Amino acid sequence: MKLAFRNACFSLSSRRLNPNPNLPLRPFSVRTASKFSVSPSLRRLGTATLCSASMAGGEGHTQPPPPSYPPLEKQFEGFRVQLDESGGLRERIRAVVMEVESTARIMHASLLLVHQVRPTPEVLERPKAQIGVLKELYNRLAEVLRECPGQYYRYHGDWRGETQTVVSHLALMHWLETGNLLLHTEVQEKLGLNNLEFGLDIEDYLIGLCFMSNELPRFVVNQVTVGDYDCPRKVLKFLTELHAAFRMLNLRNDFLRKKFDGMKYDLRRVEEVYYDVKIRGLTANDDSTGETTKQEQQQGHV
Amino acid sequence: MKLAFRNACFSLSSRRLNPNPNLPLRPFSVRTASKFSVSPSLRRLGTATLCSASMAGGEGHTQPPPPSYPPLEKQFEGFRVQLDESGGLRERIRAVVMEVESTARIMHASLLLVHQVRPTPEVLERPKAQIGVLKELYNRLAEVLRECPGQYYRYHGDWRGETQTVVSHLALMHWLETGNLLLHTEVQEKLGLNNLEFGLDIEDYLIGLCFMSNELPRFVVNQVTVGDYDCPRKVLKFLTELHAAFRMLNLRNDFLRKKFDGMKYDLRRVEEVYYDVKIRGLTANDDSTGETTKQEQQQGHV
Amino acid sequence: MKLAFRNACFSLSSRRLNPNPNLPLRPFSVRTASKFSVSPSLRRLGTATLCSASMAGGEGHTQPPPPSYPPLEKQFEGFRVQLDESGGLRERIRAVVMEVESTARIMHASLLLVHQVRPTPEVLERPKAQIGVLKELYNRLAEVLRECPGQYYRYHGDWRGETQTVVSHLALMHWLETGNLLLHTEVQEKLGLNNLEFGLDIEDYLIGLCFMSNELPRFVVNQVTVGDYDCPRKVLKFLTELHAAFRMLNLRNDFLRKKFDGMKYDLRRVEEVYYDVKIRGLTANDDSTGETTKQEQQQGHV
Amino acid sequence: MKLAFRNACFSLSSRRLNPNPNLPLRPFSVRTASKFSVSPSLRRLGTATLCSASMAGGEGHTQPPPPSYPPLEKQFEGFRVQLDESGGLRERIRAVVMEVESTARIMHASLLLVHQVRPTPEVLERPKAQIGVLKELYNRLAEVLRECPGQYYRYHGDWRGETQTVVSHLALMHWLETGNLLLHTEVQEKLGLNNLEFGLDIEDYLIGLCFMSNELPRFVVNQVTVGDYDCPRKVLKFLTELHAAFRMLNLRNDFLRKKFDGMKYDLRRVEEVYYDVKIRGLTANDDSTGETTKQEQQQGHV
Repeated sequence: MKLAFRNACFSLSSRRLNPNPNLPLRPFSVRTASKFSVSPSLRRLGTATLCSASMAGGEGHTQPPPPSYPPLEKQFEGFRVQLDESGGLRERIRAVVMEVESTARIMHASLLLVHQVRPTPEVLERPKAQIGVLKELYNRLAEVLRECPGQYYRYHGDWRGETQTVVSHLALMHWLETGNLLLHTEVQEKLGLNNLEFGLDIEDYLIGLCFMSNELPRFVVNQVTVGDYDCPRKVLKFLTELHAAFRMLNLRNDFLRKKFDGMKYDLRRVEEVYYDVKIRGLTANDDSTGETTKQEQQQGHV
Repeated sequence: MKLAFRNACFSLSSRRLNPNPNLPLRPFSVRTASKFSVSPSLRRLGTATLCSASMAGGEGHTQPPPPSYPPLEKQFEGFRVQLDESGGLRERIRAVVMEVESTARIMHASLLLVHQVRPTPEVLERPKAQIGVLKELYNRLAEVLRECPGQYYRYHGDWRGETQTVVSHLALMHWLETGNLLLHTEVQEKLGLNNLEFGLDIEDYLIGLCFMSNELPRFVVNQVTVGDYDCPRKVLKFLTELHAAFRMLNLRNDFLRKKFDGMKYDLRRVEEVYYDVKIRGLTANDDSTGETTKQEQQQGHV
Repeated sequence: MKLAFRNACFSLSSRRLNPNPNLPLRPFSVRTASKFSVSPSLRRLGTATLCSASMAGGEGHTQPPPPSYPPLEKQFEGFRVQLDESGGLRERIRAVVMEVESTARIMHASLLLVHQVRPTPEVLERPKAQIGVLKELYNRLAEVLRECPGQYYRYHGDWRGETQTVVSHLALMHWLETGNLLLHTEVQEKLGLNNLEFGLDIEDYLIGLCFMSNELPRFVVNQVTVGDYDCPRKVLKFLTELHAAFRMLNLRNDFLRKKFDGMKYDLRRVEEVYYDVKIRGLTANDDSTGETTKQEQQQGHV
Repeated sequence: MKLAFRNACFSLSSRRLNPNPNLPLRPFSVRTASKFSVSPSLRRLGTATLCSASMAGGEGHTQPPPPSYPPLEKQFEGFRVQLDESGGLRERIRAVVMEVESTARIMHASLLLVHQVRPTPEVLERPKAQIGVLKELYNRLAEVLRECPGQYYRYHGDWRGETQTVVSHLALMHWLETGNLLLHTEVQEKLGLNNLEFGLDIEDYLIGLCFMSNELPRFVVNQVTVGDYDCPRKVLKFLTELHAAFRMLNLRNDFLRKKFDGMKYDLRRVEEVYYDVKIRGLTANDDSTGETTKQEQQQGHV
């Protein structure tokens, strides 16, 4: 049988190629044997199998199957174990990410208040209360990932969207509080991501900033409505700096690039609001510079 | 002014939150300072920066900017360097992958001959000659990736398609030669991928097998036309075993799953051809051993 | 006025930059003047203006406008002339291409007969009669293009689709007549395109061959229906050679690549038809080789 | 066999058509032979092959294949060489264009400052510094194209988008400096495109102007906010002239036409800003000369 099979498509001449049909299998069995023998110890680590769930050394870490098994089944048995493990890992990641997502939603809900009132520390207290929860969740996510070193980017897609949203909320809150951009390292600190194994991907951080930028035109319009005529100037200054900083980057033609291209519309919209306020000489009720005053005088002529 | 900005949207009360507006920046500047000081050496390694191109520790590896720089610009300057490096890496990967793709095409072109004649060792010589070229190319790819340990899955998408094609060709050649499935470890050996850093992703291997399976119905049809009436039985046996092995796996609802679902149509078509041959009693005019007959008896209830 | 305009956005300080507002215009006017002076002669050539209709030296070839004209209007007047000329050229190309298209349609209509009867020289007489018409039309097209050397690829898109169709018809007719592939040089000869100025683009030729290939499965099915059991073998041999030849090419991921990928389905379909004929031992009424005979004997057992 | 093949689908009668099946090949082989003999020298020139990479004379420039080769393979071998060369050329073009794109981005980044401050010669120094870099890059691009005379429009699509962006930046800078439109010849001079082989396509120039126009409403809004109340009048005058000049052109229904249609929205927006300023009697607090007043009188019927 094996014989017939081995010479699947060759005439007798081919058998000369391969006098002993069993030989070609020998090195293989040996190879696998050796692999399988080391595997149990690796299994104990747990990490190992996951780590290589879908990689080279991968099928090395499956338990030794009965020698009776044909190599094909033996291999697929190994794959089954590894795919199940990586599937299980995905499930656990997914579970944490769902919590991240709902925490981010709660944060956003309370953050939305800033569109109705002048933001005060009190307004930000509730969204800020969620930061601790998120830190805890990312800590759990990092633990899950710790089981498979070097696989960050393999599962990255499973949490990046939620993380971008989180970044946008944190950055908006930080700007409201300090008037400064929340830096990458500061996000990492807030979320406890500042370890080399599990950090905040730069592109996710940048995309998060773009999402935050999308919120600003609406914010400016609403602040002017509630009488803060100086808000447009501040937001414009901030957004202009942010936009200029982004322009330093050589963005490939990808999602980040697309998001960034959208930022200029936010910028334009804020400029328009600032223009409306200036042209009407609506006085900023704070450090109005000489020019503002001059402009107010000019208003006199109208 | 900076002060006014810092308290962008807060009444005085907010200042209490943050008595010394400059303090929150101190630890950051320190952190970056220290980072930036180590960076030149890291730059020299090259690896380091790439490695973290888009990760947490990332912005640590940019050269020290003049202390004058505001943190925002400083950060984006760091990002620029890292994104450019990872972009450059992508370009280099792309260059090698293009060569893999064209080598695979040459291999396929000569492999296609098996659809016109009865495959002999001679027919397989030319496609086999390309294996060495591929091994060399994967070696170069591994070298590029070696510059950024733990980033295999970050760039994986850039070569996986071509690799799946390569696997399908190798697996077909191997089956033609030995009548056995080319195992994952054997592909890795042929392509020199058997190191932990840069191996063959299991899903890519499995998808490659699905592609090979798609070739088999055509092969069977053509072999029968050139008079090998025993080929359908052999292919059917092989494909049945392969299909059964795949069924052991818990496939998530992804590309692999979709490809595998296609395999059953290959199986069905091969069964039909086998049926055509049997129903016409076309006897295998080649080394049909005793067990072929036994097998035919088993097939009796067809 | 000019003065106020010139300093559009500069404070006085800027005027120092540019003490004499008229100076910067001098060299410009001179430049244009000289250009415009040479242009009439060029106009006479006709070619010249077209040739550069939308290119560098372009606006040099417009007739001298009254010196009164401001440079902006002067320039756009030049553009108007050139865009109109290139538009006119496009119209003339379009007119010829429409005739090519309808001639190709006539050719196709009479060529379709080969799907109902066994092709004979008589059947091909009518489509062949159109070749002369096409040659004449391409000659007219070449004349139009001769007016703007080096602009072949600028207007190429206007006729390539129709040309690909023409190639597919000619190639099918040629194969029916000779059993060989119509070569690129042979198409050029038939259509009088063998001059360096206006030739047949290789990609158009190749795409045309792909279109021809799409006709073959239907042809094979119909020929078997009218009793030509040897047709599948011939078509299969031809299509296999053609497909293998295409595989030598490094096709970029473009339209040609897409069309070529489709060819393998034609090949598969023809193989299936050939298989049906063989498995039923339908005797080819021509040089049936020993193998075929053996196969017929085997049929005896059924 | 060849014979049987040649008369693929004809009865004997057809053979009369073509008494000597080998004859039709003779002239071809001769033709190619001669061509192939000259080719090596051409290969050395490099240019030649590229030049005709995908054109009529094309397959003439492949190295002489062994006479054994069948014409079909011989032809495709020629195509392979030519397609590879043209693909290589595309790669080299792409590399330069990527640099053009990133230089244009740097230029734009520094040019954006004019939206925050009153433009001064100092502000324009940085973007102007990039012009030299661009000139150098276009020079390299021209060198690449020089390898295939008469193929400008074949590869044109690979750089036109970036070039349109470059034109829009240069035109904006020029207007800010001189209050005049940057003419086509002036762009060519700045970028060193004033040679007949490699120039600036007029449509690219015009599209670039449309892009510049899109920047002007934003510019006007921002200038008014920084207190330059005379800016709207100047921009309106410029944009009105530009729009009127475009109206002289007979634009086909293409991309340029679409872009131009957008210009009227820029015009409308600038008119609105000018209206806002006038209705509030915001006096231009800068060098408003007598003709400004005259101009205001003219605007009286606004």
